[in-house]
Amino acid sequence: MEQRSIFASLSPLDHRYYLANRELFEKLGGFLSEEANVAFCLEAEIALLTVHARRLYGQDAKTLVDAEALRQKVTAELVYEEEERTHHNIRALVNVMKRFVPEKINPYVHLGATSVDILDTAMSLRVGGAVREVVLPLLWELEERLAVLAEKEAKTPQVGRTHGQHAVPVTFGFAMAEYAARLGKSLLEMEKRCGDLRGKLAGAVGAYNATSLLVDDPQGLEREYLQELGLEPAEYATQMVEPEYMLRLLLEINTAFGIIANLADDLRHLQRSEIDEVREFFSSTQVGSSTMPQKRNPWNSEHVKSLWKAFAPRVVTFFMDQISEHQRDLSNSASSRFVADYIAGFSAAVERMNRIVESLYVDRQQMRKNLDMGGDMVLAEAAYVLLALEGDSDAHEAIRKATLLCEKEKISLKEALARNEKLWDLLDQGLRDSLGLDADTFFSDSARYRGKAAEKAITIGRKYKELAEERRRK
Amino acid sequence: MEQRSIFASLSPLDHRYYLANRELFEKLGGFLSEEANVAFCLEAEIALLTVHARRLYGQDAKTLVDAEALRQKVTAELVYEEEERTHHNIRALVNVMKRFVPEKINPYVHLGATSVDILDTAMSLRVGGAVREVVLPLLWELEERLAVLAEKEAKTPQVGRTHGQHAVPVTFGFAMAEYAARLGKSLLEMEKRCGDLRGKLAGAVGAYNATSLLVDDPQGLEREYLQELGLEPAEYATQMVEPEYMLRLLLEINTAFGIIANLADDLRHLQRSEIDEVREFFSSTQVGSSTMPQKRNPWNSEHVKSLWKAFAPRVVTFFMDQISEHQRDLSNSASSRFVADYIAGFSAAVERMNRIVESLYVDRQQMRKNLDMGGDMVLAEAAYVLLALEGDSDAHEAIRKATLLCEKEKISLKEALARNEKLWDLLDQGLRDSLGLDADTFFSDSARYRGKAAEKAITIGRKYKELAEERRRK
Amino acid sequence: MEQRSIFASLSPLDHRYYLANRELFEKLGGFLSEEANVAFCLEAEIALLTVHARRLYGQDAKTLVDAEALRQKVTAELVYEEEERTHHNIRALVNVMKRFVPEKINPYVHLGATSVDILDTAMSLRVGGAVREVVLPLLWELEERLAVLAEKEAKTPQVGRTHGQHAVPVTFGFAMAEYAARLGKSLLEMEKRCGDLRGKLAGAVGAYNATSLLVDDPQGLEREYLQELGLEPAEYATQMVEPEYMLRLLLEINTAFGIIANLADDLRHLQRSEIDEVREFFSSTQVGSSTMPQKRNPWNSEHVKSLWKAFAPRVVTFFMDQISEHQRDLSNSASSRFVADYIAGFSAAVERMNRIVESLYVDRQQMRKNLDMGGDMVLAEAAYVLLALEGDSDAHEAIRKATLLCEKEKISLKEALARNEKLWDLLDQGLRDSLGLDADTFFSDSARYRGKAAEKAITIGRKYKELAEERRRK
Amino acid sequence: MEQRSIFASLSPLDHRYYLANRELFEKLGGFLSEEANVAFCLEAEIALLTVHARRLYGQDAKTLVDAEALRQKVTAELVYEEEERTHHNIRALVNVMKRFVPEKINPYVHLGATSVDILDTAMSLRVGGAVREVVLPLLWELEERLAVLAEKEAKTPQVGRTHGQHAVPVTFGFAMAEYAARLGKSLLEMEKRCGDLRGKLAGAVGAYNATSLLVDDPQGLEREYLQELGLEPAEYATQMVEPEYMLRLLLEINTAFGIIANLADDLRHLQRSEIDEVREFFSSTQVGSSTMPQKRNPWNSEHVKSLWKAFAPRVVTFFMDQISEHQRDLSNSASSRFVADYIAGFSAAVERMNRIVESLYVDRQQMRKNLDMGGDMVLAEAAYVLLALEGDSDAHEAIRKATLLCEKEKISLKEALARNEKLWDLLDQGLRDSLGLDADTFFSDSARYRGKAAEKAITIGRKYKELAEERRRK
Repeated sequence: MEQRSIFASLSPLDHRYYLANRELFEKLGGFLSEEANVAFCLEAEIALLTVHARRLYGQDAKTLVDAEALRQKVTAELVYEEEERTHHNIRALVNVMKRFVPEKINPYVHLGATSVDILDTAMSLRVGGAVREVVLPLLWELEERLAVLAEKEAKTPQVGRTHGQHAVPVTFGFAMAEYAARLGKSLLEMEKRCGDLRGKLAGAVGAYNATSLLVDDPQGLEREYLQELGLEPAEYATQMVEPEYMLRLLLEINTAFGIIANLADDLRHLQRSEIDEVREFFSSTQVGSSTMPQKRNPWNSEHVKSLWKAFAPRVVTFFMDQISEHQRDLSNSASSRFVADYIAGFSAAVERMNRIVESLYVDRQQMRKNLDMGGDMVLAEAAYVLLALEGDSDAHEAIRKATLLCEKEKISLKEALARNEKLWDLLDQGLRDSLGLDADTFFSDSARYRGKAAEKAITIGRKYKELAEERRRK
Repeated sequence: MEQRSIFASLSPLDHRYYLANRELFEKLGGFLSEEANVAFCLEAEIALLTVHARRLYGQDAKTLVDAEALRQKVTAELVYEEEERTHHNIRALVNVMKRFVPEKINPYVHLGATSVDILDTAMSLRVGGAVREVVLPLLWELEERLAVLAEKEAKTPQVGRTHGQHAVPVTFGFAMAEYAARLGKSLLEMEKRCGDLRGKLAGAVGAYNATSLLVDDPQGLEREYLQELGLEPAEYATQMVEPEYMLRLLLEINTAFGIIANLADDLRHLQRSEIDEVREFFSSTQVGSSTMPQKRNPWNSEHVKSLWKAFAPRVVTFFMDQISEHQRDLSNSASSRFVADYIAGFSAAVERMNRIVESLYVDRQQMRKNLDMGGDMVLAEAAYVLLALEGDSDAHEAIRKATLLCEKEKISLKEALARNEKLWDLLDQGLRDSLGLDADTFFSDSARYRGKAAEKAITIGRKYKELAEERRRK
Repeated sequence: MEQRSIFASLSPLDHRYYLANRELFEKLGGFLSEEANVAFCLEAEIALLTVHARRLYGQDAKTLVDAEALRQKVTAELVYEEEERTHHNIRALVNVMKRFVPEKINPYVHLGATSVDILDTAMSLRVGGAVREVVLPLLWELEERLAVLAEKEAKTPQVGRTHGQHAVPVTFGFAMAEYAARLGKSLLEMEKRCGDLRGKLAGAVGAYNATSLLVDDPQGLEREYLQELGLEPAEYATQMVEPEYMLRLLLEINTAFGIIANLADDLRHLQRSEIDEVREFFSSTQVGSSTMPQKRNPWNSEHVKSLWKAFAPRVVTFFMDQISEHQRDLSNSASSRFVADYIAGFSAAVERMNRIVESLYVDRQQMRKNLDMGGDMVLAEAAYVLLALEGDSDAHEAIRKATLLCEKEKISLKEALARNEKLWDLLDQGLRDSLGLDADTFFSDSARYRGKAAEKAITIGRKYKELAEERRRK
Repeated sequence: MEQRSIFASLSPLDHRYYLANRELFEKLGGFLSEEANVAFCLEAEIALLTVHARRLYGQDAKTLVDAEALRQKVTAELVYEEEERTHHNIRALVNVMKRFVPEKINPYVHLGATSVDILDTAMSLRVGGAVREVVLPLLWELEERLAVLAEKEAKTPQVGRTHGQHAVPVTFGFAMAEYAARLGKSLLEMEKRCGDLRGKLAGAVGAYNATSLLVDDPQGLEREYLQELGLEPAEYATQMVEPEYMLRLLLEINTAFGIIANLADDLRHLQRSEIDEVREFFSSTQVGSSTMPQKRNPWNSEHVKSLWKAFAPRVVTFFMDQISEHQRDLSNSASSRFVADYIAGFSAAVERMNRIVESLYVDRQQMRKNLDMGGDMVLAEAAYVLLALEGDSDAHEAIRKATLLCEKEKISLKEALARNEKLWDLLDQGLRDSLGLDADTFFSDSARYRGKAAEKAITIGRKYKELAEERRRK
């Protein structure tokens, strides 16, 4: 087989990111490489031939169609050689295959099928296989790590941030539970979409023209063929399987991509010098900058975000590929091949995020320090709510002014509030009623104002850990 | 209220396409205009206040919260006036609302909520409402028309086209069944996604900080609030509802958009001068071109395709809006407002397609003429299959050469095949076996080679007509 | 004229963002509204009629074509009324216009033109006008503010950040000079593109078929017509002007949009609670959060970023609109109308950024504090370079290890370096040679290690301030 | 070097499209592969070292920096090995390089530079080189073929089509001139953009911090360094070169891509069975369909369109990569690597289009047949214009009604017009005046109504042929 140096490849997926994800990409290659393409098309042809043979010769079919031998003999290389002559890839495959099929059923190779009966069916097998066997396990691994992290850090105080500004307290586990919940639901959807990819044997325009000449029940033949491969037929077909089965899977993948990119952005910013709450693993020999020896950069999170930027916009192509004139215009032929790139790019991002989360250093002290940074201003909401609860219908404005006072006089919110004895008593009463705490205690530790953050982190964490474990056990 | 000439609007949606879709856009406006935005936020605030009042005062709640009066009094205009002072839209709404709420529960207005508890909840109601009440009925109308057309034209012969080239015969009903099948499944998905939009009352960072001060069961409070509005809570919330509930609905809408754009492209091309198989309705006073008086252009199909080009790429924005730093960064605030434009643009396309299909003129004669245009070359596949069936393992190549001969000698395929008596007998035998027809009959009318086109058109047509009728009856 | 409440509009551009940018959007409306569309098409028709009249009647042309009267009488409303009958917008305009044109030249109205001769020409005038008269002045205003800011803060020490991590020092003016330089060049490009929009009078398919019947020199006629309007003809035309003249302008606008979005992101992050180096203006009555009274959010920067997310992906539509089958397929008819939305969205972002920069509060103390936050670690690069200069070929590794030591022993870099007397002497020597400073002085104030930041800020600032002033003076 | 089977690659660019474009992709690989990446970074490092050496040792520099030896010894493989230790690609390159540099100047390797000084400079060289040396020559070849075709077919009558409908006549050369004109201008822009890529040596944050320690004139040093490589410095730099220099080149490439995709669409449709005016070359052994032996598909045009769908939306990534926080956030690190894929995908499309145009079969007879297909209806515009010229201000409506009559009575336009003797005389008079033809002659051959199609085709064809020849001669 023609060999080439990896470094001579044009796509980063075939040099740099192959080397960085060798094991993963080898697995993906089992479904998405050109070798795999030929192999899966061959599987589809074998399935078709098997069904023909079974219908003609019953039990003898197995002897006539030696699948193992065909798998050995029909290589990508032979097929490509033949294609130089035919300029047609499936005809080339068929011609090569016929060399190794007994004369008795030789005319039945590919019979009744149009190329796309093979190609679209193989595409569903390939993408479905890659996602089910390689991508989803990786994703569930990440999901489990997130769920475990959510539970583990369920009670670690952290300041909640909106607009990049300190808002009110949460816990770090609660913050991570966001990603467990969003990604988890996406994986459940992805599993469903993955199980709903379809194949076809409906011929050149989807109307079973050719197979109607062969058999009485062309739709039965289609079902038999696809059953061999573990698929169901598309409800309707032109020359192609309806594009939306695949499209919806790809859109769900892009949805998961967005969730992971969001996590990457969160982690990038939590690693800012001024925030510094988490840290990616950094080996002792690793260099952060070629010129600034002190640098420890969040380069893995950046990598994930960057991959998202490279791949997420490609959904536009997926949507464009819905449109094909009449019974097909073939203008999706090249573009749909790049689904392989897309899945590889996504997988590389998942893999990297997996490694980030696996070895993420959580600096609880720094989280606490940041939470306390602005003093007790993060309790302004609590003060307003308590005040309103006691019947003050202008509570928000009262507290807003109190915070302006704090800023002006450089005092804490507690001090500002306590200046007004009546107000302070109201707050004290309110807190005793709702949380069973006196105002002094409550306002001396803002971490207490965390609502149901811990409980929610634990509930979500447990739920998705269990779902992940179920899948791991399978 | 401030009035403006329609022609002074900047967006075509608010002048030209408003005028072209007045009734439709008025209905959409009931959910998606800025008036509607304020009204739905008010509904959310009323629901919250009602729940507070009920918990505090039981049966008296109804007297305390006069929803009808609030709906009358709290107008977009008053709210916008107040916003000029507060620079915060929900605080403005709350301030205006408080003017009309009895003192007794006045402090409870908005209490425990952050703006987004109102805004995101209202957004789910608005988009969900617009899609369920306006867009889906329109889509099911289109779906029914397509299903009926598929059935009606189930047996109308048409040439199947791949690569824009004559392939093998289908029927026009079969061709239309494609869109009934694809769009139908999309509508079922859309209904599901539409029923899964969520709300929240989880506060500023999603951890129920504020409501934990108010009640023992903040998540119970959230459920009560949302129940008033017919929604369920998001599994997890930051300041926002998880974005994926809405995202998946929007992606399904874009999927349906692609299907309709594909239909538009098909119809455009079927109206080409040289093909001319269908025609859009053209009124007798209508002008096709300002300079070419004879023109009858497929301008409606073009319009649909053009709207798709304008709106489909906006999914990139939807995906970008998945990413929000920490508990929220607000960079989706302006962008998510344009979901209204997106739905309006899509609806205009659906409406237009509805009108096209409603009055589509199908020229059966011209279809037949085109089918026969290339003589019997569209039967080449049949010849190859029959030949292969009879055991010729090189059948494809044999027939391919026959077609080259036809081209060279300007003869029909039938003539070319009949020259080889042995071959002709084989074909004749094959046809008698499979279709019960002699070769002469078969090769004299290519429309007979249509496979299961008619049956499939009828099955699909009936299935989706019934689904559409079910919905219409509701 | 039909009036409607602003709050009934569907597009945020016609309600919320209209109200927020009233003056700006009124100016844009003078080019981009539907009223303006009709008015500019009328201008094109008047120009054509004037040229015809001049060729026929010489000096009398002016009396025959009463442009002022036509501008008064031919309103959007009359044209839309007529379009209800013709279903063709330009034919409608022509019909209305003819009502007010003397019989003598009445047949010459629109004569020789196809609709697109008018529409595409008007589009170039409208977009060109909006950009030149409204958008560019706003952009140059922003450019000038950035340039002034760069110069003003040229010497304000700030830590340089890469990967969100402290790298080496810069100045805040230097950081702002980035945007002056990038945006400035973009504006120069935009001016060029804006001056290269084209018109046409080449008829239905671009081959001057109709005008060849009218005159000897149809291309001369085209030039005359366009000269009336201040345009040049496209080098080639189908029914349409070559799309790339407009495309390149739109792409440059999107390029400027990206630059402004980048600035918005920078400012958002510099306003993070933990960084807090700059602050957007916040009025004393303004509310930051409906529930957290202490919040002061960077909502203007977020707004700019959000508009970018809403509009930047629309370039995909612009690229799609390059493709039109044969002499035109009309599938760009609806989509190109949304160029008006795009320009309005961009303008709103520019306007907002203008206001942000105008009133930006720069906290020099906080910048200094952040710069000093990590002690002298930002001088690690300097230490490495100096060491290497003295001939140590392993300098980077040596200093990298020193920084690890600092971390471990909680000492400053200066202390770590000074422990090695020989090393310290080398550094001291190096610094005396290169900067004329002793090591002690240099390592006691990291702000000294700012390279040419101040000089560059001043050069860039001055250059673009002058360019902006030139334009303002015109 | 690690070798791998081509068929094991994941990206189609590294298997199928590599094989289909071997020579082209090898050439591109010389700039865009990972080998090339390392090689060009090495060039940048050599340039920097050379400048250092020259400043230190004057004439002896050449002996100290043995560029040839370094090119031999510093391989991608060694660098990747080293990177496994450093986890930093440029530090790895530097470490390997230092092994082969004399001690005397060893510390000066990379001194003063940050990684991106090397990487961004190398990127400009690589992309600039690939476009200038490989892509542009290919494009000018295509341009020349289009120009020659335009001239050659300048007088071949073809029907002009708008909305896919027969409009008025053009010539095929005129239709091809469209692409010569549009693509030609794009190439001139591309050349300009390609010549304006920039490099930098401004250090970690762009402020020349490190180089200010080394030399008095760090900007002079930068210029010297870049001069060695044939580049100029960016006006401003953060850690990176301003992104817009590269962005504008990529946008122009995407603009050219759209033009070529438009041509592909035109050719696809002209090959429709019903139109059949041109044909792609199809070898005698080639198979059009695996099941329909008669098929001759326009698969090359489809391939070009499909590549456009796969690659054009990637501009969204290019725009996203404009945004980088502060002095850089590295989230463009992975994404910008895929510029290599983009250029390869575009080049494959250009190469294919080149082959299509080179061997395009133009069926002049069929063009004539299609032109005559609708009889003389394509002269309706001429009739209207002539009538209007004679003073009939309702001419358009009169002729529109005449065309309806034709349709109803199945008569030619000539017949319909001739029925009205007065009208016919008017037309006759008009034609004698304008074209010197009598009505009878004019209305008996619609090809005469072609305006300036032929002249324009020739002018455009010649102009761009000359420009292309100029470049070829260089």
